[in-house]
Amino acid sequence: MTTTSATAKFVLSGCSPSSSPSTSTAPNRLLPFTNLNFKCRAFHSDHRFNRLLNFHAGYYKSPAFLCTRTATHSPSFTAAALATEASAKIIDGKSIAKDVRDEVAAEVSRMKEAIGVVPGLAVILVGDRKDSATYVRNKKKACESVGINSFEVRLPEDSPEEEVLKHIRSFNDDPAVHGILVQLPLPSHMNEKKVLDAVCIEKDVDGFHPLNIGRLAMRDREPLFVPCTPKGCLELLHRQGIAIKGKRAVVIGRSNIVGTPAAQLLQREDATVTVVHSRTTNPEEFTREADIIIAAVGKPNMVRGSWIKPGAVVIDVGINPVEDAKSSRGYRLVGDVCYEEASKIASAITPVPGGVGPMTIAMLLSNTLVSAKRIHNFK
Amino acid sequence: MTTTSATAKFVLSGCSPSSSPSTSTAPNRLLPFTNLNFKCRAFHSDHRFNRLLNFHAGYYKSPAFLCTRTATHSPSFTAAALATEASAKIIDGKSIAKDVRDEVAAEVSRMKEAIGVVPGLAVILVGDRKDSATYVRNKKKACESVGINSFEVRLPEDSPEEEVLKHIRSFNDDPAVHGILVQLPLPSHMNEKKVLDAVCIEKDVDGFHPLNIGRLAMRDREPLFVPCTPKGCLELLHRQGIAIKGKRAVVIGRSNIVGTPAAQLLQREDATVTVVHSRTTNPEEFTREADIIIAAVGKPNMVRGSWIKPGAVVIDVGINPVEDAKSSRGYRLVGDVCYEEASKIASAITPVPGGVGPMTIAMLLSNTLVSAKRIHNFK
Repeated sequence: MTTTSATAKFVLSGCSPSSSPSTSTAPNRLLPFTNLNFKCRAFHSDHRFNRLLNFHAGYYKSPAFLCTRTATHSPSFTAAALATEASAKIIDGKSIAKDVRDEVAAEVSRMKEAIGVVPGLAVILVGDRKDSATYVRNKKKACESVGINSFEVRLPEDSPEEEVLKHIRSFNDDPAVHGILVQLPLPSHMNEKKVLDAVCIEKDVDGFHPLNIGRLAMRDREPLFVPCTPKGCLELLHRQGIAIKGKRAVVIGRSNIVGTPAAQLLQREDATVTVVHSRTTNPEEFTREADIIIAAVGKPNMVRGSWIKPGAVVIDVGINPVEDAKSSRGYRLVGDVCYEEASKIASAITPVPGGVGPMTIAMLLSNTLVSAKRIHNFK
Repeated sequence: MTTTSATAKFVLSGCSPSSSPSTSTAPNRLLPFTNLNFKCRAFHSDHRFNRLLNFHAGYYKSPAFLCTRTATHSPSFTAAALATEASAKIIDGKSIAKDVRDEVAAEVSRMKEAIGVVPGLAVILVGDRKDSATYVRNKKKACESVGINSFEVRLPEDSPEEEVLKHIRSFNDDPAVHGILVQLPLPSHMNEKKVLDAVCIEKDVDGFHPLNIGRLAMRDREPLFVPCTPKGCLELLHRQGIAIKGKRAVVIGRSNIVGTPAAQLLQREDATVTVVHSRTTNPEEFTREADIIIAAVGKPNMVRGSWIKPGAVVIDVGINPVEDAKSSRGYRLVGDVCYEEASKIASAITPVPGGVGPMTIAMLLSNTLVSAKRIHNFK
């Protein structure tokens, strides 16, 4: 877990999501995700990607990150920020995800009526992590809600790797299954890369296979599947009517499953893309020039208001739990973007929760439908 | 050919490579590459990549491109530019390529002595294009110079696609062949993608396979081969001791075989990379902030001195023929960068010819060696 490494020293200075504005003077502290009795609501994202995000703890020691709103502002930026009282349009991921699910449900129904085929998603869960169990349960519920069949295999923590591979091979050959997911993380005795690569590319609805990522990166090539979270980010932009072509975009984070494919997708739509990462000296210098920011770091409130160009669009992929004594759960979720500050500067922004999160599962359903249609050549 | 599209209206205002400074008042005009009786010297690059570069002619109508040196300069830039008389270090691609070839030759020899295996490169040439024949001849000569066996198949222009595929399959199965190249362009009746994909990935020394590009894009994955031209660009930086980590890099052009893998390679070495392309509104705003520029556009002299930050490193991938009445051949080669201007601003720059060009074939030899070593598990 990348989020745990910076926990001990981490202090957030008065930046909280608008859904629960903090008036407390007590600093919010980051919580290690794994230690939480994490009750995720339906359609919230899981942390399959968070653990793979590649920011380093050292990054966050920079003054820019720990700064208050008065620091690091350029004069022109400060003037513009002070001049505006308008709040950003909140991009309602819950509502858009519902639209997507409704569309998937309609297509699933049309397919069933036309050719008698029902798309099927298989999920393999190894071990008894509560959070993983929650994510799998949510995926199952999401499938049910749109009429997609779901198949589930639960294996004990100490299962041999071969047991997982055997089930993958079985699903690869099963004509009722059109998508296969292996819930991450796997127990440490398993080779994650080997297990993931065993999923046949035609059913790799996560879209993480290198062949798929290669096709995504290349002009005149088409991926079989677009990874769910970045696909969800682009879907939000599309459905909000936000232009991408010719715009400056900055993706923060270069993970295989969010940052890299998000950058590829933006470039495919003719944005000029910069990928900012843990070795970027002054990330805010890049973000301040961006028309579109996608933050996929896994670090709470990293992107401050001062990092954002007035009028920019901000897509916040992070879902980070921070301690919150006022919450009955003892924590609350915040994004990679300091929502309180950013929502005063940006023209549109995704909230956390309720932004990108709900889109991830919606895109998984969409990918499963795409797969079934392709396998059965159904238009 | 992308270079032909802008030919008619193209006028270059006094920017010529220092190797043949133009004092003529007559404008230089771009030549369509295909119409030239192009006599390439050994180890010059071929235009396998030029035809795949993806800049659009519309781009070059912008004032920034047609500007003279006095236009579009920011005050600070102009001051800095005027203040310096120093010339950039010329990165001698010919010399570095020779070093690489010497190293490959030594390894080929060591391998032969140790296990009796000689690396082999097969080239398939379809049709009778003079330029293609020249490139194939150069590759053959380069192989000979380092002790790599070369195999060649020449097919008539009207050969059926199946004939090409048959030869590829035969080379795929031939243990004496460790690398396979299909010389591009293929005749128009052939499906280039299908032909290229027929080369087995273990022998795809060009490194253009999507699986390879995917691995290059992903963290914790390794490509089997790095495409030759971008590999050559990075090799130049490495051998000049130019730091990449933490630097700002701008790649101009997003082709599958130069721009995209060049950006991936730079990011793998922890540069913060922006890819500028035909839909970027003000490319010079990005290049002016860059510590490292790789220009891979296929448009002569597009990058002016005013586009470059003082002290930046400039790698020029372009090899463009322009009319030159003073040359016995009637043309000369220029890069994508206006060398005359850029060499006064940059700290280091590759010339054209003699920069990236010689590196491409050197890297092809290197990749063939890498392949033979891997297939025979020779360390």
